[in-house]
Amino acid sequence: MTLSTPHLLGIKDLLPTDIRLILDTAQQFKDVLQRPVKKVPSLRDVTIVNLFFENSTRTRISFELAEKRLSADVLNFTTSSSSVAKGETMLDTVNNILSMKVDMVVMRHSASGAPHFLAQHIPAAIVNAGDGINEHPTQALLDAFSIEEATGGLQGKKIAIIGDIMHSRVALSNIYLLTKMGAEITVAGPPTLIPKFIKEAFGVNVTYNVKEALEWCDVANVLRIQLERQNQPLFSSLREYNLAFGITRKLLDSIQKNIVIMHPGPINRGVELDSDVADGNESIILQQVENGVAVRMAVLYLLSNREH
Amino acid sequence: MTLSTPHLLGIKDLLPTDIRLILDTAQQFKDVLQRPVKKVPSLRDVTIVNLFFENSTRTRISFELAEKRLSADVLNFTTSSSSVAKGETMLDTVNNILSMKVDMVVMRHSASGAPHFLAQHIPAAIVNAGDGINEHPTQALLDAFSIEEATGGLQGKKIAIIGDIMHSRVALSNIYLLTKMGAEITVAGPPTLIPKFIKEAFGVNVTYNVKEALEWCDVANVLRIQLERQNQPLFSSLREYNLAFGITRKLLDSIQKNIVIMHPGPINRGVELDSDVADGNESIILQQVENGVAVRMAVLYLLSNREH
Amino acid sequence: MTLSTPHLLGIKDLLPTDIRLILDTAQQFKDVLQRPVKKVPSLRDVTIVNLFFENSTRTRISFELAEKRLSADVLNFTTSSSSVAKGETMLDTVNNILSMKVDMVVMRHSASGAPHFLAQHIPAAIVNAGDGINEHPTQALLDAFSIEEATGGLQGKKIAIIGDIMHSRVALSNIYLLTKMGAEITVAGPPTLIPKFIKEAFGVNVTYNVKEALEWCDVANVLRIQLERQNQPLFSSLREYNLAFGITRKLLDSIQKNIVIMHPGPINRGVELDSDVADGNESIILQQVENGVAVRMAVLYLLSNREH
Repeated sequence: MTLSTPHLLGIKDLLPTDIRLILDTAQQFKDVLQRPVKKVPSLRDVTIVNLFFENSTRTRISFELAEKRLSADVLNFTTSSSSVAKGETMLDTVNNILSMKVDMVVMRHSASGAPHFLAQHIPAAIVNAGDGINEHPTQALLDAFSIEEATGGLQGKKIAIIGDIMHSRVALSNIYLLTKMGAEITVAGPPTLIPKFIKEAFGVNVTYNVKEALEWCDVANVLRIQLERQNQPLFSSLREYNLAFGITRKLLDSIQKNIVIMHPGPINRGVELDSDVADGNESIILQQVENGVAVRMAVLYLLSNREH
Repeated sequence: MTLSTPHLLGIKDLLPTDIRLILDTAQQFKDVLQRPVKKVPSLRDVTIVNLFFENSTRTRISFELAEKRLSADVLNFTTSSSSVAKGETMLDTVNNILSMKVDMVVMRHSASGAPHFLAQHIPAAIVNAGDGINEHPTQALLDAFSIEEATGGLQGKKIAIIGDIMHSRVALSNIYLLTKMGAEITVAGPPTLIPKFIKEAFGVNVTYNVKEALEWCDVANVLRIQLERQNQPLFSSLREYNLAFGITRKLLDSIQKNIVIMHPGPINRGVELDSDVADGNESIILQQVENGVAVRMAVLYLLSNREH
Repeated sequence: MTLSTPHLLGIKDLLPTDIRLILDTAQQFKDVLQRPVKKVPSLRDVTIVNLFFENSTRTRISFELAEKRLSADVLNFTTSSSSVAKGETMLDTVNNILSMKVDMVVMRHSASGAPHFLAQHIPAAIVNAGDGINEHPTQALLDAFSIEEATGGLQGKKIAIIGDIMHSRVALSNIYLLTKMGAEITVAGPPTLIPKFIKEAFGVNVTYNVKEALEWCDVANVLRIQLERQNQPLFSSLREYNLAFGITRKLLDSIQKNIVIMHPGPINRGVELDSDVADGNESIILQQVENGVAVRMAVLYLLSNREH
């Protein structure tokens, strides 16, 4: 089985069969990661460059770990150590790196569409590791993997996505994926952070009442408040956000059912999520991180077109 | 033989038999490092992350080299490229990295006790690569290894530790180690940089006269003046420090015996140590650096619980 | 066959037979790089440290890729994460790294002569990856390799070097190399950017008319305007430079012959080179980048004195 696309630019471009293939392959790699020897030779002699034009800890390390466990050769390129400071265009930078015969590029960029632009101009497989406010497909894939693991499947599951929907590439990729796989979605948060068109565009439910969303859902995916992406202050204080839209222990205990709590990280503890919820029994946040490596191994492996 | 502890947080926690085991194992790795092929497969499939929340050249490179020569997979994480800038707590950062199934963490942090805190919360082996003004255990171990190599042993040897005792984690780890192993210690330096309680607390001799310390000792371990850790200027000039407490060729020639000169680096040439002493026959400073790789290989190997 | 020198400090020190050996060895590695498996075990167990005291994307990545494809162990050291901030001297830094038994050093530094200074003090093989305004020998070697590939040889070929000759280590290394190998050279550019003595010192032709140079040459090597190295503004605008000395499509079409266009990168598009020339049929710029990896593999392999 192979993917219907030579790149992973976004969930928008994937078929449901692609998503199924990635999730099933990720399960095989997750089994490998439980063994004492976590390394497989699948991508031996494949060179992958991680092009991070935007800062990231966990995503870069998760990809790097996935690459090394597939036995690939890994090069890291971050903005701070780059020719970008010399005024080189992004395309020149990438073309130069590819002329050195790099096989795959994992790219994060603050401009939406940057990896799509590159995919039209270069011969390597490209994995989007987050582009502006557009998509973050491997995050949505690891979220889906974690939901299946916690609840047994995606079809018919009720997923609440809570917080800053407007600026979140995680939200958008999740909405594409969950819709394709037959889950029901409610987005919840302050009106200022939920796009007006979202119900019509994506067929999701909308509520501005977080408690209502929690009472409805099987799984709540709580987003990070992306303060750095907002051009204007939306709340007089983070405390105010916490009171109105944060997931607190008290709020969670007031719901008459068990739900699963997810968060893409890094958590603003005490803002969108209280510490006793983040670290509580409902939380599968660290499983998401663990699953991220397996999902990224699956994506890289499938795009490489190598045989085991 | 195994260590009595699953982590290396400080020399304070080690038994003399632990120290002996590390030093003997380091000697085996030093023998390996003399061979044309310096790599051993001991930690193949072990993933180690170097978490440096504080800047360091030689310590990070020494650990990285030790890890690569043990055939471990290595990930580097430094503050500048981290989520710490996004306000993530240290524990979240580390928990996330560990959820990715990392086996060992080498950590440097400006807060004393940071690795001890982590060791209570995470399941990986932790090696303290320097925490605030508390300990720098691998430095003390490589110093001890170098003293044994130069003088034949530790028991009964007279070691002078000279300079900024107050702010030095190197001094504290050395005092713990040398005391446990039966060496005699004199600390020397300006009164403002020597803690008042040190004689009572550790049973070391104290002098404010550097020449006196040199005349007494077999080995002088000259510390770096940590200007960046002092909150107030202590000398009207570095020249003044050099005149009163620096180790000059003239001072050394006035001593009627041969002593060994050590320094943990990086050297402030012309401040605590003159260049012709640092580069002279008495100096084993570069041997210390060489021994650091062997000692760190030994620590990582012993904590990994892998068999050869 | 071996090189006549234990280091690659500059083209100035090489014999024509050295240059021939490097170019022929590079061709063998280029053949390897066309294969699906691009890795060779030649430098297994060799440790190489990349010491970049000056920022660079393509040169560092090109060297790192060359090293990894030779199966060397690679450590990266850049100024931002270094003890240099603590006031350590460059020699101490390097001595420390070498005490850890590093076999080879690839070094870039803003001071002309820095690698030569080191070569007198340390026992490892040193490769100059660019020192101040002095030399950038691997760039000249990959330029020569690319000229041979495009035109069939160096002997008797007419090469124009165009732009900022005054501040360019690329120009100087190219002049040394092409002269030794029997090519003819014309330098062209604004009078303020061409050293007065250059005709007498190197036997090259000089013109301030770029069109004249293009009409004369087989190959035009267009240099980057190194704005960051100039102490005073030389043009009222970059546009003015482009009009007077830039290589435009219109200018190129006005020449009655086919010439090859080269550039060491990164390109200031629209300044020294227009985009439609950089990306046009005459351009071998991306081949230069590709050849850079093969040439650097050859240099590292030959300096290592290892057998295949």
